[in-house]
Amino acid sequence: MSKAIFYHAGCPVCVGAEIEIIDLVGVENLDIVHLGEKKEQISIAEDFGVKSVPALVTPNGHVLHINFGASLEDVKS
Amino acid sequence: MSKAIFYHAGCPVCVGAEIEIIDLVGVENLDIVHLGEKKEQISIAEDFGVKSVPALVTPNGHVLHINFGASLEDVKS
Repeated sequence: MSKAIFYHAGCPVCVGAEIEIIDLVGVENLDIVHLGEKKEQISIAEDFGVKSVPALVTPNGHVLHINFGASLEDVKS
Repeated sequence: MSKAIFYHAGCPVCVGAEIEIIDLVGVENLDIVHLGEKKEQISIAEDFGVKSVPALVTPNGHVLHINFGASLEDVKS
């Protein structure tokens, strides 16, 4: 299986979810992208359908929004 | 690791998330509970902090609300 992508923005909700997702899925199966630090990747995340962080894009391209930390609009600003 | 519990209520959003979570975590690591069919378990889910389905309760007791299908209030009615 190719990797899932975990998008976050360093917020407390994101960090909490990241710990759980690493535990469940395994860090070796994840690409972890901090959109606050890599703003050029926000449009890629949007193309997957990501609306808020934290979010997990599965290897087959589906988006799981996990809890709610911040909208992508907030991350952009 | 003990099992994570995936709570759902048979809604389309739930089914979509279930497929992804099984793919990511492995069905052998999951207890899957249909709260629409097992309403007596709704209060157990609430005690974990579940507010809506689909939701995943991790082996260490944290709740990940995944996308949004229905509130537990809706499932009760």
